[in-house]
Amino acid sequence: MSSSKAATFAGPDRAAEVSTEPREPDAYARAGVDISAGNEAVAQYKRIAEGWRHPGQLDAIGGFGGLFGVPGQQGRALAASTDGVGTKILIAAELGVYGTVGADLVNHCVNDILVVNAAPLFFLDYLAVGKLDPNVAAEIVSGCYEACRAHDCALLGGETAEMPGLYAPGHFDLAGTIVGIVDTKDVPDPSRVQPGDAIVGLPSRGLHTNGYTLARTLIPVDEYSAPFDGTTFGRALLQEHPSYYRDVRAMQSAATVKAMAHITGGGLIENVPRTLPPNVKAIFEQSRWTVPPIFQELCRRGNLSHQERYRTFNMGIGYTLIVPLEQAPRALSAVPAARVVGWIEERRGDEPQVTVHPARA
Amino acid sequence: MSSSKAATFAGPDRAAEVSTEPREPDAYARAGVDISAGNEAVAQYKRIAEGWRHPGQLDAIGGFGGLFGVPGQQGRALAASTDGVGTKILIAAELGVYGTVGADLVNHCVNDILVVNAAPLFFLDYLAVGKLDPNVAAEIVSGCYEACRAHDCALLGGETAEMPGLYAPGHFDLAGTIVGIVDTKDVPDPSRVQPGDAIVGLPSRGLHTNGYTLARTLIPVDEYSAPFDGTTFGRALLQEHPSYYRDVRAMQSAATVKAMAHITGGGLIENVPRTLPPNVKAIFEQSRWTVPPIFQELCRRGNLSHQERYRTFNMGIGYTLIVPLEQAPRALSAVPAARVVGWIEERRGDEPQVTVHPARA
Repeated sequence: MSSSKAATFAGPDRAAEVSTEPREPDAYARAGVDISAGNEAVAQYKRIAEGWRHPGQLDAIGGFGGLFGVPGQQGRALAASTDGVGTKILIAAELGVYGTVGADLVNHCVNDILVVNAAPLFFLDYLAVGKLDPNVAAEIVSGCYEACRAHDCALLGGETAEMPGLYAPGHFDLAGTIVGIVDTKDVPDPSRVQPGDAIVGLPSRGLHTNGYTLARTLIPVDEYSAPFDGTTFGRALLQEHPSYYRDVRAMQSAATVKAMAHITGGGLIENVPRTLPPNVKAIFEQSRWTVPPIFQELCRRGNLSHQERYRTFNMGIGYTLIVPLEQAPRALSAVPAARVVGWIEERRGDEPQVTVHPARA
Repeated sequence: MSSSKAATFAGPDRAAEVSTEPREPDAYARAGVDISAGNEAVAQYKRIAEGWRHPGQLDAIGGFGGLFGVPGQQGRALAASTDGVGTKILIAAELGVYGTVGADLVNHCVNDILVVNAAPLFFLDYLAVGKLDPNVAAEIVSGCYEACRAHDCALLGGETAEMPGLYAPGHFDLAGTIVGIVDTKDVPDPSRVQPGDAIVGLPSRGLHTNGYTLARTLIPVDEYSAPFDGTTFGRALLQEHPSYYRDVRAMQSAATVKAMAHITGGGLIENVPRTLPPNVKAIFEQSRWTVPPIFQELCRRGNLSHQERYRTFNMGIGYTLIVPLEQAPRALSAVPAARVVGWIEERRGDEPQVTVHPARA
């Protein structure tokens, strides 16, 4: 999402995500977002869902997507996830670049249900605009369509709503829902994750769809066209959220993948624990991958603390897979861009579930 | 949706709806919505979807929801629909009434897939806010949850996004996606609709989730607390969008239902034809039902033409079912609030597919 998850409540009740800015108030207070509100909303959602649970709902892993048993079919489940593009769309609107947000959205959704190993079936979009420009709307929906097609996923439906009182004339919001399918025996079982396992990371291209409310305070609109890293700040911020579907499938055919995480809002620190058993911790070694220049720039400008940066941004890792150490070479050879970025250790007491060791200067 | 569908493109490609204000510019130009833009967007969406179609997609009836074959199960399909509450939420926000929009949304979605006879499986919500108030968010999500529970439908997931740059502090948007299931043999076949069939109508409670952009120009905010029809204008405008699920099931157990329509944006004039074969027309006789006072007030204030009112508002009929004339008494006895509101006649050439005869003064 647009920004980091204030929290995610996982598990059987409702695979819900609340996207606000994260914990440490220094940088985020400036962006005007109330952190405690996100936690409180999550707590209230939990209470709401305690009343009743549909028997078709299955335990979801980490809350990236919800699982629902296919009626009449033992051993198969539908996986579903709803997400938005967040305030990345304000940058797209400012730059008049509408072709990429559809792929951002679809790929985000694809990755979310990929965590439970689901293959996409169909997708539906929701586009809300202040003033309907048919060419802009078509460019956005076309982006969804092409990204769906790339995953053999039907663009089954959608809603385009013109709401002049709610959105400013050039503004819009874009959300979508994906539904996929998985054999329940193929849903990764995090309890198999053991000390000594390797964590393989797939590189990110940029912010993807998270951290934009903060990024927009650090890189103001009038710098969007300024040159940066061979492109412009605006274009660097709009770098597409990639799909990890093919890379993950390639890796699964080469190695046993025990657990996966999609590194969205909350970064490595909040997303990786979502698929870990409580008795292990993940240790990342930042020297093992390259932090893209846009993150270096944002961290410098915002003077972000180590924790803050790994809790807000993906910092260069878009997706993680946990594999047995001895299979890591095979996994890496299946996907050339992949790197071993950390490992699993035994966790004692209330040790943090994720630690990122900074690279030495 | 918030407003009438400028058009809906139905059929096999993508069950999409574009919600803008309808055709006749007199009243709508004042509400600042461009009608031709909606038609143009629909045309462009159609062109986009011409490129490729997933083999799992089935022909959808009237585009209320999309149909997708359940993988590995002959004869069963998933039905899915995405919708929003439209600018009804601006009235809810103005009045600080947050408990009903969730049911508005869920019930709208339930009714949309009910047109293809699907039973709800699960629902996912998307709540976007300018500033996250956990109590408000919980009230909205709780409304979704209760309406889901009333349909034995899982609230499987959701996304709550705080986007301060996009939404004003008290503003929010709410959309949702429903997935249901149906035996394909039970999907109504409109080709069975014949001249002489009766049209049964189920009463609406008010605007439901359509026509609010216009309604808000006709009833200004400062009148929301003024008394109207035993309540206030604000409360009358917020009347809940009901689910027709149980009524429809009751009627189906008493009579053969050949086709159904959910009367959303576009009113009787645009929604009923979505499930009619081209060789028949629907004739409504307005004296057969009561037009709720809120519509009388809106039509008077807006000086809306006959066509305009039946194209923007449901005018008292929220859902229609087509049954053989001889079975109409049985159908009516199953649902006391139901009325025969019209009949099917043979259509010649390019006669209008829907005519509403006004009640005599």
